[in-house]
Amino acid sequence: MAASSRAAGLGRVAILGTGLIGGSLAAALKQGGLASHLVGFSAGDAGQAMSLGLIDEVADSVEQAVAGCDTVVLAAPVSVNCGLIARLAPHLPPGVLLTDVSSVKMPVVAAGLRHLGPALGGFVPCHPIAGSERSGPQAADPALFRGRIVILSPLPQSDERKTARLEAVWAHLGARVIRLAPEEHDRVYGLVSHWPHAIAFALAGAVARDGVSRDLAGLGLMDLTRTAASSPELWADILIQNAEPVLAAAAQVERQIALVEAALRQRDRAALVNLFSEAAAWRKATG
Amino acid sequence: MAASSRAAGLGRVAILGTGLIGGSLAAALKQGGLASHLVGFSAGDAGQAMSLGLIDEVADSVEQAVAGCDTVVLAAPVSVNCGLIARLAPHLPPGVLLTDVSSVKMPVVAAGLRHLGPALGGFVPCHPIAGSERSGPQAADPALFRGRIVILSPLPQSDERKTARLEAVWAHLGARVIRLAPEEHDRVYGLVSHWPHAIAFALAGAVARDGVSRDLAGLGLMDLTRTAASSPELWADILIQNAEPVLAAAAQVERQIALVEAALRQRDRAALVNLFSEAAAWRKATG
Repeated sequence: MAASSRAAGLGRVAILGTGLIGGSLAAALKQGGLASHLVGFSAGDAGQAMSLGLIDEVADSVEQAVAGCDTVVLAAPVSVNCGLIARLAPHLPPGVLLTDVSSVKMPVVAAGLRHLGPALGGFVPCHPIAGSERSGPQAADPALFRGRIVILSPLPQSDERKTARLEAVWAHLGARVIRLAPEEHDRVYGLVSHWPHAIAFALAGAVARDGVSRDLAGLGLMDLTRTAASSPELWADILIQNAEPVLAAAAQVERQIALVEAALRQRDRAALVNLFSEAAAWRKATG
Repeated sequence: MAASSRAAGLGRVAILGTGLIGGSLAAALKQGGLASHLVGFSAGDAGQAMSLGLIDEVADSVEQAVAGCDTVVLAAPVSVNCGLIARLAPHLPPGVLLTDVSSVKMPVVAAGLRHLGPALGGFVPCHPIAGSERSGPQAADPALFRGRIVILSPLPQSDERKTARLEAVWAHLGARVIRLAPEEHDRVYGLVSHWPHAIAFALAGAVARDGVSRDLAGLGLMDLTRTAASSPELWADILIQNAEPVLAAAAQVERQIALVEAALRQRDRAALVNLFSEAAAWRKATG
């Protein structure tokens, strides 16, 4: 990477929340030379992030973390990020680029509109579509975002230069950036991520409750339930923060499940083959 | 492998159906020196299996394929295997070991009880828990069964020496053999495999029908829908052959989904965390 492209980094960066995503972003920014200094704060594990070399400094409070920063990244669970927006609004340095990595965008957008005042133009909501069933700073990986999609959901009020700067940084980290309005983001990810995670938890839960021997499960079930090993608290939070779009997605999926079940009750092989072929075509083209 | 253990192979083997499973089994038997000669028959692709070196000979008919064989493996779709049992019963050589690799056991057991007569003692129903979203002889892999589970579902009438011989052969191929009564097999696999496959198809179908851009899907959805790239015809056949246990499994999973949905409607975070924790504990322990 050329010095000129390194110069278009994020300057002094505060990472609030140094778990899997925040820790991975810190490590990636450091590796890419895209931050001049990385200050971390976390309710639990910033010390561990520091000892792992992910950040340069641990702050004693969020207010201390953001003091003098060029960029603030909210990388806590979505409900915590919303609270941080309200709490930090009076403490944000002028001209700061504020972004987040929350899986749900409307709650942070609403908190921004309500609390940020003149700092709203510096707010660029963001969601990297990357993760793992692992969590915590010990799972952090600077390559986590390489080849992944990152959604930017700027507001009409967002400063386009800041949006473009953040876009360039994510591109430097190997991500493909797509812009999506916050409402559309939440609708789409309710369907392609949030409710599917709930289904994985439900499926694993049904098998667990049945009491069937663990030995009997095949690789298909392991794929289907991989995300059920994710953090229960994190996913409860995401589902509740995006409840209405997720419930709409649940209805879409249930309609499709009902079609399969009806075809099966009628032993209608042609109908099953049609339903499955449509799904297989989508999956093969997407895979 | 010692010559003595090779000697406990399957002798002259007819493989009826030379797709992914039949082709992989043929390749594994050949590689392991566990068959003296491999004759294949398939409605479509035995010639391809031959040119790929999976089998030694292509038969012109199933009757010709089984003539003089020590072992007959039914490796066609389950409904075809049932038809083959009826058709082959008068043509099976005395003392033959007849087995199958069907994903559903009660239909082949019923066909065996109805048609096999004196050959029933040689019938050892079997289901290797291995597969892939790929299909056909070109996807065959002699290592497909290594580290996998193979279910044997012998009948009270099955010859224990033949069951033990088949068990030893699967163990030579690197599989772990578990015996399970046919009814229990179908109940368990309805829950841990058949209905989960239907859910994967339904989920991929719901996303396909929504029309959301393929670019936006994350790795979680790719895991959840991987099996939706499997053969629609194969899975329609499996679900219909195991319809009642699968519908019972569907009800079990739907109860669990309804619990998640109710907790979400009530924004009951504690209830969601409890449900997800139970699932995550199962998944992590099974992983």
